[in-house]
Amino acid sequence: MRVHHLIPPWFKQYRPEWLAGDAIAAFIASMMLVPQALAYAALAGLPPYLGLYAGLLPLVGYALFGSSSVLSVGPVAVLALMTASALSPIATPGSAEYINGAILLALLSGLILLAMGFLGLGSLSNLLSLPVVDGFISGAAILIIVGQIAPLLGVENSGDTALEILLSTLSNISSTDPQTAILGVAALLSLICARLGLPVVLIKMGITPPRARLLSRLAPMLIVLLAILFTILFHWGKEIPVVGDIPGGLPELKMPTFSLGLIHQLILPALIIALLGFVESLSIAHAIALRRGEKLNASAELRGLGAANLLSAFSGGFAVTGSFARTAVNDEAGAKSPLSGVIAAVLIALVLLYAARIFTELPVCVLAATIIVAAANLINLRAMALHWHYDRTDGLAMAGTLLGVLLFGVETGIGLGIGLSFATLIWRTSRPHIAVVGRVPGSEHFRNVLRHTVKTQPGILFLRIDENLFFSNISAVEERLLIEVKRHQNPHDLVLILSSVNRIDSTAIERLQQINRDLQEHDIRLHLAEVKGPVLDRMGRSRLLQELSGRVFLSSYIAELALRRHQINVEDSKSNESLPPAKST
Amino acid sequence: MRVHHLIPPWFKQYRPEWLAGDAIAAFIASMMLVPQALAYAALAGLPPYLGLYAGLLPLVGYALFGSSSVLSVGPVAVLALMTASALSPIATPGSAEYINGAILLALLSGLILLAMGFLGLGSLSNLLSLPVVDGFISGAAILIIVGQIAPLLGVENSGDTALEILLSTLSNISSTDPQTAILGVAALLSLICARLGLPVVLIKMGITPPRARLLSRLAPMLIVLLAILFTILFHWGKEIPVVGDIPGGLPELKMPTFSLGLIHQLILPALIIALLGFVESLSIAHAIALRRGEKLNASAELRGLGAANLLSAFSGGFAVTGSFARTAVNDEAGAKSPLSGVIAAVLIALVLLYAARIFTELPVCVLAATIIVAAANLINLRAMALHWHYDRTDGLAMAGTLLGVLLFGVETGIGLGIGLSFATLIWRTSRPHIAVVGRVPGSEHFRNVLRHTVKTQPGILFLRIDENLFFSNISAVEERLLIEVKRHQNPHDLVLILSSVNRIDSTAIERLQQINRDLQEHDIRLHLAEVKGPVLDRMGRSRLLQELSGRVFLSSYIAELALRRHQINVEDSKSNESLPPAKST
Repeated sequence: MRVHHLIPPWFKQYRPEWLAGDAIAAFIASMMLVPQALAYAALAGLPPYLGLYAGLLPLVGYALFGSSSVLSVGPVAVLALMTASALSPIATPGSAEYINGAILLALLSGLILLAMGFLGLGSLSNLLSLPVVDGFISGAAILIIVGQIAPLLGVENSGDTALEILLSTLSNISSTDPQTAILGVAALLSLICARLGLPVVLIKMGITPPRARLLSRLAPMLIVLLAILFTILFHWGKEIPVVGDIPGGLPELKMPTFSLGLIHQLILPALIIALLGFVESLSIAHAIALRRGEKLNASAELRGLGAANLLSAFSGGFAVTGSFARTAVNDEAGAKSPLSGVIAAVLIALVLLYAARIFTELPVCVLAATIIVAAANLINLRAMALHWHYDRTDGLAMAGTLLGVLLFGVETGIGLGIGLSFATLIWRTSRPHIAVVGRVPGSEHFRNVLRHTVKTQPGILFLRIDENLFFSNISAVEERLLIEVKRHQNPHDLVLILSSVNRIDSTAIERLQQINRDLQEHDIRLHLAEVKGPVLDRMGRSRLLQELSGRVFLSSYIAELALRRHQINVEDSKSNESLPPAKST
Repeated sequence: MRVHHLIPPWFKQYRPEWLAGDAIAAFIASMMLVPQALAYAALAGLPPYLGLYAGLLPLVGYALFGSSSVLSVGPVAVLALMTASALSPIATPGSAEYINGAILLALLSGLILLAMGFLGLGSLSNLLSLPVVDGFISGAAILIIVGQIAPLLGVENSGDTALEILLSTLSNISSTDPQTAILGVAALLSLICARLGLPVVLIKMGITPPRARLLSRLAPMLIVLLAILFTILFHWGKEIPVVGDIPGGLPELKMPTFSLGLIHQLILPALIIALLGFVESLSIAHAIALRRGEKLNASAELRGLGAANLLSAFSGGFAVTGSFARTAVNDEAGAKSPLSGVIAAVLIALVLLYAARIFTELPVCVLAATIIVAAANLINLRAMALHWHYDRTDGLAMAGTLLGVLLFGVETGIGLGIGLSFATLIWRTSRPHIAVVGRVPGSEHFRNVLRHTVKTQPGILFLRIDENLFFSNISAVEERLLIEVKRHQNPHDLVLILSSVNRIDSTAIERLQQINRDLQEHDIRLHLAEVKGPVLDRMGRSRLLQELSGRVFLSSYIAELALRRHQINVEDSKSNESLPPAKST
């Protein structure tokens, strides 16, 4: 690959007047990123400074290959939680082995994303339905919050599930360290006030609402710096846990090396991290692109995120993806191009080079407060209410995923969610809607007898099947059919209207043949009407059309006319040739 | 429950003239059953005489509760194989622990079947598609045959999969015991001749074809008795393996007792055995009922099979179900009622009481020959060819199941099969058929532009979606939509015809809203036409109808008229109230 291929299009088209916007946005986004990066690394069970590594080169990687101009890539809470969940059964958090595992997870996720990008497998993300993703994110956020209560108060916790962690935290609550708890809760309240109250105050002070919102985004960094200042001034670092040693300087670039066994253990978590990271990032990028009237390219997104994760791994970081909060701020702060990401990376590099030591005195409880506030924003009650309101089945899949995360952890939770999505799909196709229809007087239209005043013919039963016919629903169709036949006191003709049937599988076609024979036993002729072209073509490969006791009609109206006038010659219709032309599609 | 509730209806209606048919059928079926019962017990890894136990009380149990008049319940090859597969990781074949496990499997299967019967869960059998069942049975039959080559030739074999067993048999082939092999192969050839040639010979001798077929069914018993006679006469029993000790007399009735741990290990295999046994038995019973013009009751079948398995367990037997071969013979031999099953049970009891000792001298290689011939009849090449011909996807699911059984064993094979069925279903719904349609000149009908000569309107694009919209296919729909929009040089109006859409899930409705916004960005109005009543009702719960840039039209024709005349007032259509009446269903 030549070098100029690596130069992204936005760079060639760059206009000098964009620089101010990009630089300001980069500053605000990186000031948000520093405390979040430290916090999410801690959440992942890693030394906090690794969060800064994960917030450095990935920004450049995405800027080179991604297609969104303002997506802010880096450490995010949910992937940090998933990293911890994947690694905690394998190694002790913070150990060299554990860090190695985190790097491998990022590497594998990056490779998976790149492979999906180059093989055009972006559609793999269709495995995840929206209710499942929303339920998962909310469940993960609650799990994160529950896990951070203990470090916020300076007590111990243990356990793998939300309930276990909560119970262990509550049982240790008496050993709360007052100093930690006061500082932690103060930081938490300050963060909440800064988020909810500060914009209001700033607007009252005459600052424009957009600017007030942006300024309030700097508050977490300010609170962190204040906490560090107090800790240094009052020598709290000896009494309460602080972040501790941070090696200054930039990360070394090196090729990670690993055993096949470890890869085998981490490939599934890496796949889930890659898929979820992609789905989340794509939905953020899509929302922003829509707002800005830009075009998004799913393959470029996969390559951008893949490159970001590879670079994270090569520089000792962990799995990254697009951050909802930082992307929104980057956009609002006036970023014009991915250069803002590159500038943010430079700013993070400067922090690592010249200011990293400051953060050694940052109390862990303040990080916990940062995580709690960030996680609380991930709980999307509105989206969950919408799903619940729109479709109760989808709502249940969502609730199941959420509860799965809380009761069994993130990996089982997402597995349960995917299972529930497909179970829902299968359950839906297994309960076909079937309507007894009759003709609307004075027209050729046939409608549901329950919804409309229609004319029915004695002895002729019209049934419309509103679902594809599969092994999973053909029994239900057969049952309903027999019920209707009995209810209509054994009609002599039964017409199945297949206008909504696009596919009939092998099991269903065999059962239709059986139904035809069963009805014949009871002297009921079976006819088909409005069969779609491809479906009729496929039927020709089975014996159904040869065995059919009745005929295939172009339309329900033609069927009614023919059957009412007794003009139908059943023998004639038994060969394929004499069938009327198929209804076209 | 009062005693007279236990008396089945057929008994109260019994007519004396039925007795001859029932007795003759019972005699032939039980003569078939004896060698098969011994063989299948051996196949299950159990002492052969337990097969006779499994062929005794289950016949009575089914006669009391089942609904088919001629279904012959008892040991069958596939369930024997599945019993062996479930138990071999747990205990040594033939040990007390192993026998205990087989009894527990029958007990659990029986309870599962009864539970399904009483809870109305017969539809659980819809988990299994026909191609998967056919692929599974054929795979199991091949696995059985491969496993019987070694005992047929008197060599050792080992391994879990068909390939392993075949390779180990071939590597031991040099240690073939000539005497065993000669007897085994002679028995095998005799059985094959009896099956294929004997009816022909008998017909030539002037016997009617049905009678010739029935008489040929007695040949296996005759061959077994001849083999025993030779073994006794020539004292082969000292040199080649024979069945060995058979305790005379009837089985003791006792309540099995088991640990919870064992139940936990066997509950999944028991479920698979119950489901597969039910599916197979129901298809046999259904085919026979159809031929005889009788009514079959799925719940009664579940109760009948459940009772049969419970009684098998209480009398020390293993899992049973309806046998295809014996049922066909029972029917052909003139059985009129389930009394033939009861008489067959009495005959088996007589064998156990007075003739069991004969079978101690039966060479194992002759049993192997019996199993091979029975299994070969289970390979249903015709059904497999039909599936393959009808639908390649179903054919692949079938082939996958068959290969899964051969490469990984029966349990993984059936699991793979169920997985493949659902994967097929999901794959199908994920590839929606979408057609660009135009109006057939001089009519109100809209048809696929690729199949018909139709009129299209410049600037107005009509797309018909022929599939329900789910999380798994909405991306494909979106992609196709954008391709068509580009191909038609940005039309100003896009009409989605939803006449075949019966369901739109939560993910799809959100994406439709997004698509609407995206199109609006490009100044394309999105309209919907022919939306079904329930779908429109559901849409009302989302924001789609409020946000829709275009309108909802009753029919495609009305849409064309309105859009062509530019009479559409978009603002008016943005509230639900002003929408045209929904298309009825």
